[in-house]
Amino acid sequence: MKAAVLYSGGKDSSFMAVMLERMGLDVELCTANFGVYDSYIPARKSAEALGFTHNVLNMDVELLEKTCDMIMKDGFPNDGIKYIHEKTIEKIAENHDIIADGTRRDDRTPKLNINQIRSLEDRKNVQYINLDSFGHKSVKLITSNMFQISHEKSNKDNSSHYEVAIRTLIDDKGGNSLDIFPEHYQTRVIGYKK
Amino acid sequence: MKAAVLYSGGKDSSFMAVMLERMGLDVELCTANFGVYDSYIPARKSAEALGFTHNVLNMDVELLEKTCDMIMKDGFPNDGIKYIHEKTIEKIAENHDIIADGTRRDDRTPKLNINQIRSLEDRKNVQYINLDSFGHKSVKLITSNMFQISHEKSNKDNSSHYEVAIRTLIDDKGGNSLDIFPEHYQTRVIGYKK
Repeated sequence: MKAAVLYSGGKDSSFMAVMLERMGLDVELCTANFGVYDSYIPARKSAEALGFTHNVLNMDVELLEKTCDMIMKDGFPNDGIKYIHEKTIEKIAENHDIIADGTRRDDRTPKLNINQIRSLEDRKNVQYINLDSFGHKSVKLITSNMFQISHEKSNKDNSSHYEVAIRTLIDDKGGNSLDIFPEHYQTRVIGYKK
Repeated sequence: MKAAVLYSGGKDSSFMAVMLERMGLDVELCTANFGVYDSYIPARKSAEALGFTHNVLNMDVELLEKTCDMIMKDGFPNDGIKYIHEKTIEKIAENHDIIADGTRRDDRTPKLNINQIRSLEDRKNVQYINLDSFGHKSVKLITSNMFQISHEKSNKDNSSHYEVAIRTLIDDKGGNSLDIFPEHYQTRVIGYKK
């Protein structure tokens, strides 16, 4: 009963990891990396603080290139983030039987819809689990009681979301990633509450 | 952090109860009863075997009457079961802040859809949680490792589903409940696996 949880170090994917572990699964955390920046480091620190095994999933930079092209053309990140998330889940499904992520009932992007979930499960013969059981209030209630959480202005070294690699490559391509991802506050799980 | 779980003694609502308890909530199990048969007893036994507090939620027999009328008119139980489930959840929401049930991603009836969930949460100022995170394979995998489960031909004394009260009243009204609910096998949680 091994499950791979796509992991960012945030409260949602940490919630998923702990939930599956407490329900008896053998949990391994995975963070995608695209070779342009070591954005997996914050997730690794959170994984260690929670006592989980953490693996970096090396992804092709071509996927990141295509994602950045979509986002620069669109002028907003939604469809690009959705695309890179779907491809990352597909990649994890090649080597795992149970795949989970921290997308919640109220999330819009990234998020697999029910048809994508059924297609993934059928094509790859896997089980997919997300946080659709819970609204944001329930996730906040449970995680704020369970975890110590840091709140910081987002920067490239306190987040392992897709955003970090995408911003790096957009800026390398001469774009201005701040036009697309305005500054915001970032939460990261730094341990369990005593 | 108190949560009321609508409880039948089956593997799905038992999964929900254990999951919420292990995520730090104070869990209380509730089984609806309509005054025509003591159908809460199997659920109570399962709740005791798992170490949970169990309450019987006394519901108006008028709700059961209306449900049976719908089902006898339709000739099949789906809409009636959906109706009685919605009304039972609404009733629990009058006295609890967090309400959960064991309906899974693949379930059709009874099941609250996303619009009903949002309406319930907004109108009653509650949080609602179900098993939408999980497909039936994942629920089966996790519960078969966690619980001792009995499989028996369904009868009025080994199930606390709405079906038992509905069958009782339909037969009292001179209908034949076996035409509507054919015999089937029933699973009930009888304890944790060692």
